[in-house]
Amino acid sequence: MSANLAFAAAHLPEIRSAAERIGPHIRRTPALTTDLDPALILKPECFQVTGSFKARGAFNAVLRLPPGTPGVVTASSGNHAQAVALAARTAGLRALILIPEGANPAKIAATRAFGAEVLTEGVTFANRDEKLVEAVESSGYALVHAYDDWNVIHGQGTGALELLEDVPDLDTVACPVGGGGQISGWALATKAIRPEVRVMGVEPATADDAYRSFHSRTLERLTAAPITIADGVKTLSIGAKNFEVLIENGLMDDIVTVTEEELEQALLTAWLRCKIALEPTGALSLAAFLAGKLGAGRRVGLVLSGGNADPSLVARLLR
Amino acid sequence: MSANLAFAAAHLPEIRSAAERIGPHIRRTPALTTDLDPALILKPECFQVTGSFKARGAFNAVLRLPPGTPGVVTASSGNHAQAVALAARTAGLRALILIPEGANPAKIAATRAFGAEVLTEGVTFANRDEKLVEAVESSGYALVHAYDDWNVIHGQGTGALELLEDVPDLDTVACPVGGGGQISGWALATKAIRPEVRVMGVEPATADDAYRSFHSRTLERLTAAPITIADGVKTLSIGAKNFEVLIENGLMDDIVTVTEEELEQALLTAWLRCKIALEPTGALSLAAFLAGKLGAGRRVGLVLSGGNADPSLVARLLR
Repeated sequence: MSANLAFAAAHLPEIRSAAERIGPHIRRTPALTTDLDPALILKPECFQVTGSFKARGAFNAVLRLPPGTPGVVTASSGNHAQAVALAARTAGLRALILIPEGANPAKIAATRAFGAEVLTEGVTFANRDEKLVEAVESSGYALVHAYDDWNVIHGQGTGALELLEDVPDLDTVACPVGGGGQISGWALATKAIRPEVRVMGVEPATADDAYRSFHSRTLERLTAAPITIADGVKTLSIGAKNFEVLIENGLMDDIVTVTEEELEQALLTAWLRCKIALEPTGALSLAAFLAGKLGAGRRVGLVLSGGNADPSLVARLLR
Repeated sequence: MSANLAFAAAHLPEIRSAAERIGPHIRRTPALTTDLDPALILKPECFQVTGSFKARGAFNAVLRLPPGTPGVVTASSGNHAQAVALAARTAGLRALILIPEGANPAKIAATRAFGAEVLTEGVTFANRDEKLVEAVESSGYALVHAYDDWNVIHGQGTGALELLEDVPDLDTVACPVGGGGQISGWALATKAIRPEVRVMGVEPATADDAYRSFHSRTLERLTAAPITIADGVKTLSIGAKNFEVLIENGLMDDIVTVTEEELEQALLTAWLRCKIALEPTGALSLAAFLAGKLGAGRRVGLVLSGGNADPSLVARLLR
């Protein structure tokens, strides 16, 4: 279907306000070229505060909470957790974070280091939304959902404002898709400002719920936690608001999947050739590019979403 | 002794010309902030063309050769080799590169990939200058010395022009010191433009020839190839022109050394916390900063000189 550009345009003022609101707390990440391919432009959100793009959405959502809010609560496999923990500390609020058992230990430790209370016991990728509702009720804290939240989506979109300004002749942008928060923000900003730029999603083949939702035009849901090294996109489905942006309003042009082998290869390429220490999820868009799945483009912008890698995984790949 | 600012000022026009000459061939690397310390500014030359700052000096020297030059020859442990190989290919010249036996295999392979002829047999860190003279005589090619060459020094100084422009309130810059090419260019540019900025050198403790030269004010030379993971700074002494800039004319304010343990720790910090995949030499200035050896500064700029790491070394450290 054709993109609903009016829907995108209606969200642009909120994304611009988000950029002003979070400006003092986040980092403007650079647009990098590489020796790999002159068409390629990288947006390394691994250099963002807390090591991933999640700081953008978390700061925007936390800074919009009404005065008197005692704390914030969220569920996250890690990067959103760190981002909410830092945003809450910055705003003087408590933070309670639900992280599924078995998540990347480096991310759990980093979240605790920001002063948040972390709950992992009994939390799984499958039940964490229910656990989150219980935690909101018992704590009285405000929920900052990782992706199904307009303030979060608008915050994530601020990265696109930067890249579109830095690279005026971009013809494609590609983002990883987990819950769909980042790509929703990028799609809204991109289609509002430069509708001719193609917005592409990338998922691991083993976690292809958004790919299937895109093609069936209904919200598809994985029946079990997927097996992938991309631990940042293990969500079972995209959120309702993300479905509305990407599929109902047609703001994502296409979505492709990559194999675990393609992802491992891209991660090594990022580390050894681009000199960027990504986490696996951060290399999804590069994997799609290297596998030739993003189509022809003279100027292709890839969002490298984060760099909070598990060192033992990287050590295994480098050996 | 006090810095000879007139000497620095006399070189500035050549550094500015170098920036124009090499502009179409190299990359303007960003100035990055990190979550480590708000005082810290990183200049990641690992994102430079060929993965290190060496492209700046090599392009400047090769592009200044007289018409009709048949080829270029140099000796290098690796990064200068790749840079000269690419600059020669770009200029349509042949390249013959002497690389010491036992150098980082990734760097040798990359040099050959740029179309250069590589000679390793019988070349050691100790004898490579003599071997180089022989190779110049037998080939008839022009010598592009890795550091003891004004065109190379002026090219390296272009990185300082960028950082001083991007960060106007810098109070210290720190560079690794091998042969002294990069820090000579940085010292000339920095003292010419912002003489109050402190210029600091950093060496591995096991390769402290420049440290000793700085204190004795004579050109000290190591008696054997040093043992250090920083394979980019294994030169036995700095060059004559580098001694002239840094010590005779007093343009390097101070020099410190770091232990191998401090360097390994800094390399891990760069990879895991800054998300920058450095080679060991590239982490020297960060090691000095993290060890508190650069003194107090409100805005400390660190040159991260390159990222062409041996994957097996990094895998060992990450485990």
